[in-house]
Formats: sequence, C-alpha cells, structure tokens
Amino acid sequence: MDARREPGSAPEAGPDRPFVPGPLGQDSLRRIDAYWRAANYLSVGQIYLMANPLLREPLAPEHVKPRLLGHWGTTPGLNFIYAHLNRVIRQRDLDVMAVWGPGHGAPGLVANAYLEGTYSETYPDVARDLAGMARLFRQFSFPGGIPSHASPDLPGSIHEGGELGYALAHAFGAALDNPGLVVACIVGDGEAETGPLAASWHSSKFLNPKTDGAVLPILHLNGYKIASPTVLARMPREELRSLLAGYGYAPIFVEGSEPAPMHQAMAAALDEAFDAIASIRARPGTAGRPRWPMIVLISPKGWTGPATVDGRPVEGTWRSHQVPVAAVRENPDHLAILDAWMRSYRPEELFDGDGALVPDLAALPPRGSRRISANPHANAHACQPLRLPDLRNHAVAVLDPGRGTAEATRALGTYLRETLVLNAGARNFRIMGPDETASNRLDAVFAVTDRVWQEAIRPGDDHLAHEGRVMEVLSEHLCEGWLEGYVLTGRHGLFATYEAFAHVVDSMVNQHAKWLKSARALPWRRPVPSLNILLSSHVWRQDHNGFSHQDPGFIDFVANKRGDTARIYLPPDANCLLCVADHCLRTYDRINVVVAGKQPALQWLSLDEAARHCDAGIGIWDWASHEGEGEPDVVMACAGDVPTLETLAAVDWLRIHLPDLRIRVVNVVDLMTLPSREIHPHGLDDPTFDSLLTRDRPVVFAYHGYPWLIHRLTYKRANHANFHVHGFIEEGTTTTPFDMCVMNRLDRFHLALAALRAVPHLGGRAGHAEQALRDALAAHAAHIRLTGDDPPAIRDWRWPGRPAPEATLDGLAMGA
Amino acid sequence: MDARREPGSAPEAGPDRPFVPGPLGQDSLRRIDAYWRAANYLSVGQIYLMANPLLREPLAPEHVKPRLLGHWGTTPGLNFIYAHLNRVIRQRDLDVMAVWGPGHGAPGLVANAYLEGTYSETYPDVARDLAGMARLFRQFSFPGGIPSHASPDLPGSIHEGGELGYALAHAFGAALDNPGLVVACIVGDGEAETGPLAASWHSSKFLNPKTDGAVLPILHLNGYKIASPTVLARMPREELRSLLAGYGYAPIFVEGSEPAPMHQAMAAALDEAFDAIASIRARPGTAGRPRWPMIVLISPKGWTGPATVDGRPVEGTWRSHQVPVAAVRENPDHLAILDAWMRSYRPEELFDGDGALVPDLAALPPRGSRRISANPHANAHACQPLRLPDLRNHAVAVLDPGRGTAEATRALGTYLRETLVLNAGARNFRIMGPDETASNRLDAVFAVTDRVWQEAIRPGDDHLAHEGRVMEVLSEHLCEGWLEGYVLTGRHGLFATYEAFAHVVDSMVNQHAKWLKSARALPWRRPVPSLNILLSSHVWRQDHNGFSHQDPGFIDFVANKRGDTARIYLPPDANCLLCVADHCLRTYDRINVVVAGKQPALQWLSLDEAARHCDAGIGIWDWASHEGEGEPDVVMACAGDVPTLETLAAVDWLRIHLPDLRIRVVNVVDLMTLPSREIHPHGLDDPTFDSLLTRDRPVVFAYHGYPWLIHRLTYKRANHANFHVHGFIEEGTTTTPFDMCVMNRLDRFHLALAALRAVPHLGGRAGHAEQALRDALAAHAAHIRLTGDDPPAIRDWRWPGRPAPEATLDGLAMGA
Repeated sequence: MDARREPGSAPEAGPDRPFVPGPLGQDSLRRIDAYWRAANYLSVGQIYLMANPLLREPLAPEHVKPRLLGHWGTTPGLNFIYAHLNRVIRQRDLDVMAVWGPGHGAPGLVANAYLEGTYSETYPDVARDLAGMARLFRQFSFPGGIPSHASPDLPGSIHEGGELGYALAHAFGAALDNPGLVVACIVGDGEAETGPLAASWHSSKFLNPKTDGAVLPILHLNGYKIASPTVLARMPREELRSLLAGYGYAPIFVEGSEPAPMHQAMAAALDEAFDAIASIRARPGTAGRPRWPMIVLISPKGWTGPATVDGRPVEGTWRSHQVPVAAVRENPDHLAILDAWMRSYRPEELFDGDGALVPDLAALPPRGSRRISANPHANAHACQPLRLPDLRNHAVAVLDPGRGTAEATRALGTYLRETLVLNAGARNFRIMGPDETASNRLDAVFAVTDRVWQEAIRPGDDHLAHEGRVMEVLSEHLCEGWLEGYVLTGRHGLFATYEAFAHVVDSMVNQHAKWLKSARALPWRRPVPSLNILLSSHVWRQDHNGFSHQDPGFIDFVANKRGDTARIYLPPDANCLLCVADHCLRTYDRINVVVAGKQPALQWLSLDEAARHCDAGIGIWDWASHEGEGEPDVVMACAGDVPTLETLAAVDWLRIHLPDLRIRVVNVVDLMTLPSREIHPHGLDDPTFDSLLTRDRPVVFAYHGYPWLIHRLTYKRANHANFHVHGFIEEGTTTTPFDMCVMNRLDRFHLALAALRAVPHLGGRAGHAEQALRDALAAHAAHIRLTGDDPPAIRDWRWPGRPAPEATLDGLAMGA
Repeated sequence: MDARREPGSAPEAGPDRPFVPGPLGQDSLRRIDAYWRAANYLSVGQIYLMANPLLREPLAPEHVKPRLLGHWGTTPGLNFIYAHLNRVIRQRDLDVMAVWGPGHGAPGLVANAYLEGTYSETYPDVARDLAGMARLFRQFSFPGGIPSHASPDLPGSIHEGGELGYALAHAFGAALDNPGLVVACIVGDGEAETGPLAASWHSSKFLNPKTDGAVLPILHLNGYKIASPTVLARMPREELRSLLAGYGYAPIFVEGSEPAPMHQAMAAALDEAFDAIASIRARPGTAGRPRWPMIVLISPKGWTGPATVDGRPVEGTWRSHQVPVAAVRENPDHLAILDAWMRSYRPEELFDGDGALVPDLAALPPRGSRRISANPHANAHACQPLRLPDLRNHAVAVLDPGRGTAEATRALGTYLRETLVLNAGARNFRIMGPDETASNRLDAVFAVTDRVWQEAIRPGDDHLAHEGRVMEVLSEHLCEGWLEGYVLTGRHGLFATYEAFAHVVDSMVNQHAKWLKSARALPWRRPVPSLNILLSSHVWRQDHNGFSHQDPGFIDFVANKRGDTARIYLPPDANCLLCVADHCLRTYDRINVVVAGKQPALQWLSLDEAARHCDAGIGIWDWASHEGEGEPDVVMACAGDVPTLETLAAVDWLRIHLPDLRIRVVNVVDLMTLPSREIHPHGLDDPTFDSLLTRDRPVVFAYHGYPWLIHRLTYKRANHANFHVHGFIEEGTTTTPFDMCVMNRLDRFHLALAALRAVPHLGGRAGHAEQALRDALAAHAAHIRLTGDDPPAIRDWRWPGRPAPEATLDGLAMGA
C-alpha cells in the first residue's frame, strides 16, 4: 500500500478529497477525513491560540499565545491513527486502549479526547462549545494549564511519552492477563532508536495469545527526530522489513502523503491487522507464538502543516518538529501562514455555531467505555486488592534472637507462592526479574507456577511453560516496563532485581514517580497498585562478582523522590521481610523499595515481634540493650541485614570487654522514619526520635548504603552532630563477606572502635580495647589471605543467649 | 557450517581429535585444539585450585579453594574464540582488539593473557612457571586477588562485562577513528536481551568504513542465562537470521559441539569475515554503508565441562553457569569429577616440567603488540592531549555584570568549533548527543564538521555526511557507550544531553566510575581522557515539556561517586562555561559533569574574572556584596545559572528595600569545593570555607538541584546549621521560566523572604518588606495566568549598574 505524493507538491485543495477506491465508501472516506481535519484543527489551535478559537474574527496577533510551545510534527500522524482506530473499534466493537509513544503529540491526543466527549466529562469547564474550545486552546502548555505530553491529565493515558523508550513495554504490561484487550502501541521512529524500545519488540515471546491481550504495534515513521533523520526511516526498506520480521512480526506498510489513498490504505491495514489478531485468538492454545501483525505508517512529519515558511520547506522535514511557524505575533507573514493553515481544515464545516462538533462527525467515534480516551483499563477500573496469606504460614521460628539462621528471601518465596495460589483466579499478580527468581531463592513459587515463554520448550528447561506468573528476561528495562504497564492498569506485582543494577532503571522509576505524583492530584484517577522493587543480591554479598556489582545507590536515587511516593525498607531478617512485603503488596500509588539478602543469616525477631517492629518502622531492641535507668552511653543504630548483624556482634564484643558500658541498640526498618514529618509522612516527630536516638549521646549508625544518606535524612534532628555513620564507601572487590565489611569499616570491630572513640571519659580501658580490636582486624586479614575464608569465630558468631537446638530455627516455618 | 553432536553423547576421547577436513591442516588443527585445552585447563584451575596446579600430586580436598566462585559456563566458548582470533591475527598480521561482553568469563581471558605472556609481563610474580601458575589459580576471586570479571586488572581489557549491555557500543567507540583496527566484540546471548545491546547493532550506521576501524560482532549463543533459555538462542533460526540481516549484518553461523569440525568451521568463518572486512575496506569511500560480516557461534554452555553431576546433565545446560560441580572439598565423588575433568585436558602434554607452555603451543599466539592482551589501543597508548583554543577567541564581552545577555552554550559552540579545527589532523575528538547539538545551541560546530551518517543523505538534511565529528542518535545509551569506548582507547569527547534524561545512563556512568577507580590503582594503566557530560536543557527551562523533563538528580547520582572520580561544575554564565569546558577537556580519569543553560541569560563575569573565579571554584562576588568592614548580616550563596540570576535579583531587591542590610554574595562553580577536603580533593579547608560562608551568619543558598545535596556536602562545616537551601523540590509543570522558580521557592522574592527571616533583629522593617514580597508574588501569579508570560519587569530585569550599549554585550566575541 503506497500512497506517496510527489515531493514538494501540495495536498490537493477543494472541498473534499477526491474519492479513491478502497475499503472505505465515499461517505466514510469523506467523514473520516473530516474527523481527522477536526482533530488537526484543534491541535493547531492548542499550540497557537488563546482566543478566537474558530477564527470567526480575522486572526489578530493578540489571539496568539505570546510563548508558542508544543510539538506539531508527530501530531497529524497520531490524529490519523486515532481516527482510523475509532473506525475499526466502532465497526467491530473492540476493546482497544492505546499507548502513544510520541507523547509530545498530546495536542492531538487531547483534541481526540475532546472530540469523543471524554475530556468535557472529565473537565466540565472545558465544554463542547465555543467557550470550552477557547479554554481547551488556552490551557495547553500555559501557566496553570496542562503539560504538553500525554500526562496523567489526559483521560485514557497510562503513558506520558516524555522520556522515550518505554511505550512498547508499557503496552505489553497492559495487555498481560487482559485476554479481550488490544493495546495499540504507537512507536515513533525517534523512540525506536532507544535501547529499551529495541529490546521491547521481543516482548511477544512472553505474551500468551490465549490468556493475555494483544498488542498491535504501529511504527510511525515521520523520518526525522529534532534535526537528524531517523535510523528506521532511512535504512533500506528491505532491511526494515527483515528487522521487523526478525523481531517476530508480520508488518503491514502504509506509506504516502496524499490523504485519500492514505485513508484507504490505513483502513485496509487495520482491517488486515485486526483480522489477523482475531484468527490468532481462534487458534488452539498449543499453537505456540504467532507472528503478530504490526503496521508501519510512513507519513510526512508535520503532515498538512505549512509547506514552506520563509522560503524553507517545513512539512515533511525536521523543521516541523515543534512549532513550524514561529514569531506569529511579531511577523504578519507568519500570522497569515497560520491563518491559512488553520482555515485549510475548514473549521466551519466541522463545528457548529456553538462550537460543537457537527452531528455527522460526532457520530463517528465509539461510544462509552469503547472510546480510547475512556478505556477502563487505562484508569485501573478492574483493580482488586490482592488476597494475601496469613503470615504465620510462612514465618521463621525464632525462639531466641541471633541463634539460628534462615534465608530471608526463601521465606518470602513461600509467601509469594501462597499469594499466587490465592489470586490464581483473579490473574492479577506477576513476578518480573532478570532471570534471578531462583538465584534470589524465591524458587518456592515454582511449585505453583512457571516462567512464561512462548518459544520452544525443551527437556531440561526449568519450570518453563506457555503460561506462568514469572517473567524473566535479561533486561531490567523490560521487567520494569512490563510491571509499570501492569500496575498502571490495576494489577499487582513484584520486580526482583540485583541491587547494583537497579540503576539501569533509575530513569524509568523516576518517570513512574512523576506520573504517580501528578496522577494523585487528579481526583478522577483511581489509585494504582504500588510498584514493588525487591533488591536482593545486595552490595554486601558479591562474593562471585566484585566491585562492579557493589552499589547501594538506588536507595539514594529513590530517596530523592517526593515523600508521598517513595518508601524504602531494610528488613533485618526473614520475619521482618515478610511483614514488609505484606505491607507493600497492600499499598497503592507508591514505589516501595525493599532490600533483603538471600544468604543464610541470623534471625532476630519472632513474627509477632517483627510485626510490631515493622509497624513502628524503627525501635529499640531491648533484648540487646542495657537494661538500666537513664540514657545510654552510646546508641548503636543499624539499618539493613548485614549492618544489623555486625552491630549486634559489635555490641557483644563491647559487653565482654566493657561490661558496664550502657549500650542501646536501635534498628531501623523504614528509612523514612528518620527525616522529620514535614519532609516525609513516615518521619518520626522530634520527641519520639529523641526518645530513641537521644538528644546528646553518640550514635554509631551502621547503614546498608552510602553513609551520607543517613546524614541527609537526619540533619534537622537535635542529635545529628553526634551521628557517626558507617556504610558503603566504594571500597570493595573480591573478598569474603566479612572482609567486605572491614574494607568499608562496617564490620563489628570498626563499629566497636567507633563506639569507644565516641564515648567520652572511657580512659585507659578504651586504649586496651582499641588494641584488642586492632589485633582482631589484623588476625582476620592474615587468616583470609591465607585460607580464602573468614575465620569460623566470625563466620559462625551468634548472639549470646540460651542455646537452642539448631533444627527448630533453621528456616523452618511454624505453620504448613 | 554445522557441527552438532548428538545431545547427551560425550565428546570423543583419545589423544587427539580426529582430523576433519577444512581450512586447518592436520597439525594446525591439533595445535589449535591443544591451545584451547590449555586455556580451558587454566580456567578450571583458577575457579577451583589453590595448590597442586598441574595435578602432579593426586588431587586432594586441601588443594581446592574453600569458597568456589566464578563462572564456567561461557568460558570455554570464549577460549575457543580467543584461540581462533589468535590464528587469524597471526596469519594475516592484523591489529585486533577484543571486547568480551561476557566479562564473567574472565577465567578464560586471564588464562589467555597468561598463555600469551602479557600477564606475567604485567605481574611478574605470576610468572610462566609452576609457582606462577599456582599464584594465577589462587588469586582468582580470592581475598586480595583479582575479581571474577574482565576488570581493569586484565591486560587488554577496556570492558569489564559486569553489568551487561554495553559491549557493542564500547566496541564501536573503540573502532572510531582507528582505521587499521578491527574490534572483535563478543556478545553473549544473555547480554543480547538488554536494551542497550539491542540498540547497539545499529551503530554501524554511524561507522565510516574508510576512516574508522571495523567491528566484528561474534554473537555467542550458549543457550541459557542463569536459569532460563535465552531469547536469541531459542527463537526460530530463520527469524534470528532475519533479525541480524535487518540490523545490517551478513551473519556467518558456526554451530555444534564436536571440537574438530567446530575448529574447522570457526577457522573458515573467521577467514570469511576478515576477507569481507578487507574487501569492504578496499571499496571506494562513496560506496555507502556495507553489510558488515558477523559470526554467530552456537556452542554448549559449559562446553567440555562435566557432562553430568549427581545424575543431572550439566554440560549444555543452565547448570553450567557458575561452578558446575560444587562442594568439591566435602564430596569425594565431586572431587573425582573435578579431577577427571581437569585431566581430560591432558595438562601433561600442554605444560612442561617447569609449568611453562610447551614451545609447540607457545609459538601459536601473535607476538608483541599484536597480542589481544597487549593491544596498544586497549591501554590508550596513542593518547595525545587535545590542542585547545585561546579562550579569548570565544569569550563574551562583559563590561558590567548583569547588563547584557548571551547564550552560554552558543559561546561553547564556537569554542568547540575551533577545538575541532585544531585537532582535525589528530582525529581524536568527537561530540555525541541524542540529536540535540543544534537545539543545545552548539551548532557553530557545523561550520567545520557534520553529523556522521552512513545511510542515504537527502536534500534538506541538515549537516549530514558520511564523515563527521558529531554523532547523534536518540539513545543516551549509545552516546554514552560510544564515548566510553572512545575515551578508554585514549581519545577525547563530549556527551551533551538533556539533564532530566541523563538518568538513562546512570548505571553506565556508575560502571565507568568504578572502572576508573580500579584502573587508577594499577600503575601500568595509562590515564584516559575524562568523560565529559554537558547537561543543557536543564530543569529550570522546560517550557516546552513540563514535569517529566524536570529532574536535576543526575548531579546527586554523580556526587555519590568517589572524590577522585567525580567533578560537578555549575558555571553561572558563558565565560565561566568556557573556562570550565577548557579545564575539563584537559583532564584525565575523571567524570566531569557540567550544567549550563542554553537560553539567553544575563552575563556576569569577564573572561579574566571568570578564569579566576573558576580556578578557585567558589568566591565572593565583591561587586554584588556590601563593601563595609566585618562580617555580613547574611550570605546569599548560589550555584547554577538560574539560581545565580535569581539570587542577584533578590540582592537588588533587598538593597532597594533594606539598604543598610549587609549582604555578601558567594557564587559556587565547583560543587566539590563545599565538602571538606577529606571527602573530596577539591574541598576547601575549614578556614577558607568559613572566610567565605562565615561561621555564624545566615546563608541563603540558591542551588540548581535538590537542596539536600548542599546540606549533605556541608554538614561538617561550622556554619551548617545556618544554611537555608532553596532548590528543586519536585514542584513544576508547564509554566513560565520565572514561575517555575516560584513554585520551587527559588525565585528572587522567596530568596529575599528567606533572607529577611534569617537575619535576626530586623524588626518592623522586615514585616513591611515581607508584605511587599507577598504582593509581588501575587501580582506575578495574576499576570502569568492572564498573559501566559512573565511580567517584563521580571523577564527583563538587569543588575543595576552603569548602562552599557546592548550591542557590545549580546553574544559578541571579543576576538575573531
């Protein structure tokens, strides 16, 4: 299907496009073209006008906005796609939502929501009349108005399209477990150059044609980015065809610039694509991965815009990217170009005297929830809370603190297994990860589900099936993008990943946080389940890998987000991890980051104790603290599993060597208890904070990540000047678990040393103790360099308590 | 070429592989296979042994490391590729460096560097004898030893391969401007699933076959990641072929498991690939983008390793990923498996009595700098300092501060233009960016160079050519990866990108910082030019875009890196930007982040003043400060161009309304002057810091980014409790430039208000002034909501000084 116009020639004039044969009858062609013109008109109006919306007065400079902002280039193509999706939805009564990758084409998307009526239903002051149209135009990219992307303000949007790269991953995430749905995903040729988008094409290898919805990619080749041509538009066409076939799709090309044949070609392409989707859905469930259809739409950038401005070509070139004709207030020639351009859409035929769309066109778009801008999935209408297990079924038995070991994430695995069972019918819970579910010791889930996979399955493959709740691909971008699409359409999930490499998705998490912040301000937006990120394989246990795998900075990144969005949890043991996970899976509109190790580690709290501790988020561990009256000599605070272990070992050492030193142990699970409440809603009030961490006693704080985050969070607290924070200081490489702590001065000996130095008036005893600590460090260093392993006294250290038989403690659940 | 073995069957036993016809003669086949066995033997030895390296005693538990760490799965395949690259390099006298994407196959890469002699030349204690081999084995993944990836310790490596995704981008970066070089890039099938790698295939569209080197991708399909199959290995083979052809390559497949035919197939494939590269290089320069050859090597994961362990298949499955047989010390059966496995390589034939490689095999690898592990490019041997322009040729004339405007990045553009001219012969400077060179107003460079592009070039394309120093692709990953590869091979460059979207490459920058930290500790590693990142289109000027484009957190991310790596500069005007850029381009082994706006903005300092100011990194602006004796009543500090403007406007306002208030203005260019010197080498000593920011006076600090970074950097300073930092607090959307500041309380009025509140004893005057400020804010809000633009009094505000004719100030260079 090719409908090219000679380069440089203008689109034909006249009251209607000439009829060209195709799937559209003459009247349908006329009407769909008129509808497209209406959307284009409203798009240009939003970019340019602050008054005189229907040009019923001669266009004057004062009708034009003083600051011209927005992106025209992609907009007419999006409007073209929108009009044709409307036709096919209406004709076939389809459930279609859309993800618009080029979200900066929002003038068109807003225009379409307005034409469909959704916009006025959502924002009654932007009514479908002349005053409403004036508001529609004025508010766009205007102070106090709406942003210029497909932001949460836009009904029907789950994808802003500001930062490029995630459209297709979001679309697939939305399609999962929605078997009746088709997600049309418009991919711009700029976005198609990004890494995340390039990887996303493979998502169909994880999409079950029976139990999931379909994704219809529409690759929109406008030819140019801001100034350069795009790779996909300029590569030889046969290579593009080969590339898309290689990704597993059957592309349908629609190319040209002459509207009438383009309408016919696009209508035929959509008919073909939806026919193909219907027949894929009719296949038996065992048929394996289909070749999904996709459309490649090749149309001029700034299509139907000014052909030339100041003698330079604009339509079809990179000059159409933003505002194709600028300085309109100042330059009468430019004003005339704008006037002619807008009138070329013949608004008088499209809108009636009151400014409403004429009935002939108003009849075109789908009705009610079939409207793209009113699709219920895009506002999480089907969202149901998860059914969550009784934690007692999965708790680790802890009779005495610090005596027995368990793997925290293994306990979480059985909890997630039961969660999967409880929600099997609802099909609204998924686990994503870069091939680390088992290595992160969550493999209990494979008793009840599999890794989903649509390619061939071979003997020896490990829990691989055409259906499954676990999605594994070695792309953090895909995992994060799928999960974002999934939660934004009202379902729940967990993304478990390597701590150091969570930075790969910094920017995606950032954009999601911004979406949540903006969405929460809109009363009509329903809450969406939180984005839950589990960081296992964390900085302190990188025995296989070394320095490149050691980075706790993702926490810092998330801590920069606004208080009502970000939550950071550092459960010290298995039962605390269960309590935290249970809490996170019940929350909405948040980004919950949980850091928990997978290695066997000492357990501290029974389930009841853990529940109380996690509920408070921070607390004194009485059983490890001096029991006398009054303030302690020193507070030993800790956050994170390894720091907690090292802190308690330091306390043990200090008790032996300085038995009358009054020590208080404070453990922090919820990092956001540390700042004041004005900064974060979880922040403790000052009296409570002071009652835990004192107003004037030294605090030796062992922290999982970069130490300065603790300083930053506590800098307004009374006692802040007495905080001595030990954390990761970018010292590490291949070593033993304990030596990793030594290199970063987070080990028991350095923590004890810090306490000795911080407490005044210890006198000669401190000197002796210091020497003992230095000797211990030297002995440790000598031992590991000789043997390659930590000395047993360190490796097997336990909290001194009454002895308990190992078997009852080691990872045994109390129930089940 | 297919050399498949029946699944489950063992490789044939016997002294030598049977001869199979092919490009290798019988003796060559025997020798290359023996060399491969030697590398495999040394690889297994590194993972397992801490004594008895050549198994001359019966293998006993105490010879085995107590903690078994490392990755076997990919290693034999890498060794296979290495041996064959050696052959073709030797035979054709080629200049080949290698980028090993699966860097966790380091046991093999270290083994090969050892076999080539480079390892012992670099680390004489790891000599080519029995004691050296024992050290080689023991040090691997051992405390005080070397990491388990292709880290900087490894001669010949520029790519650690810890975080996956960047191998191909690094390879292309290394090939740029090295016309004689071939960069063999091994891409693992796990890595191939990542977004950055998926996008990187398109890099050949930016590689000039005449003036750049070649990249030979070798896609290594092992079939499995940690537990799941890989997408590229399991998709239908015809789709894979189509995908790679779609990316623009001519793939040569080598598949199988039987060594002898695999050797012949690989030798033939490399001959074909290097023949193709030679004929591409012989084509005329106008021939356009060639179809570059690539190799797809399909071999079993853990090839030649244990076929089964405990009755479960291991070779060829995901169970080979890390340590294929564990608990070797504890389990005699496992010890026997290890023993048989290592002896299957017949070490007694490979190494002589002293533990040296037998002469027959030692003759195989290339010599001197032709050895992959000694390739000069991989240690920046050709690195030359840039020739840099006289800054006076590009300075903006500033007669009086704050009177005239200029676009800072436009001045930088002319400076970069001359830099390109001065280094045109050396061909060692490039500018990368996601299609924003012109939009960031660096377009002066297009007077002397073009955007490089190997696809078709059409009329109307803007400065697009087959050769050019500017590389634009809408992938921050590619820009960053190319530049990393370019600087790691000793060349210079600049990556200019959107501030908000710099987070896309957080993780890449992180890995580069880790590389630099480790590399600097190695005396044999030559310094590499710094990675220079320019953040323009910054948070405060997102008029077109809104909240999703507003994020200054990349600075925070970089500030977490170690002091000797990260530098952050916030030049307040054009001349300061020039001084900073000039400095950055002269540095090595750093990550320099420069934040500078592109919009017309007031200019403050002449070039000489700017040079002094930037040299100090921080300073009092006397001309804006109270001139009397003694300490000021308040310090108004600022960092960043917009904060500087607003601070000076606040000072102007305060001077008018409270003329006797003693104000000091301090401007910060180098953020790392703020922490103490123990934290960062640029940190001011305390007396100097106190002399600028006082020990006890209120400091109102207007900062470009998140305010808490300033708190974090200064929390140890005497005056920290008096710091009132205003910065970005995640409030913003579509608005005017000034209103964006108002929303974040970084505007002149809020800053003046903060000063009023911070200074004690102002009495009633403060109340009047506060009211005036509130009135001004209300008037501003009303104005912009009506007109859409800032009031002229704000937009056109200038620092009060003697009037100067606009024309001499506005962007005019003093020279040229």
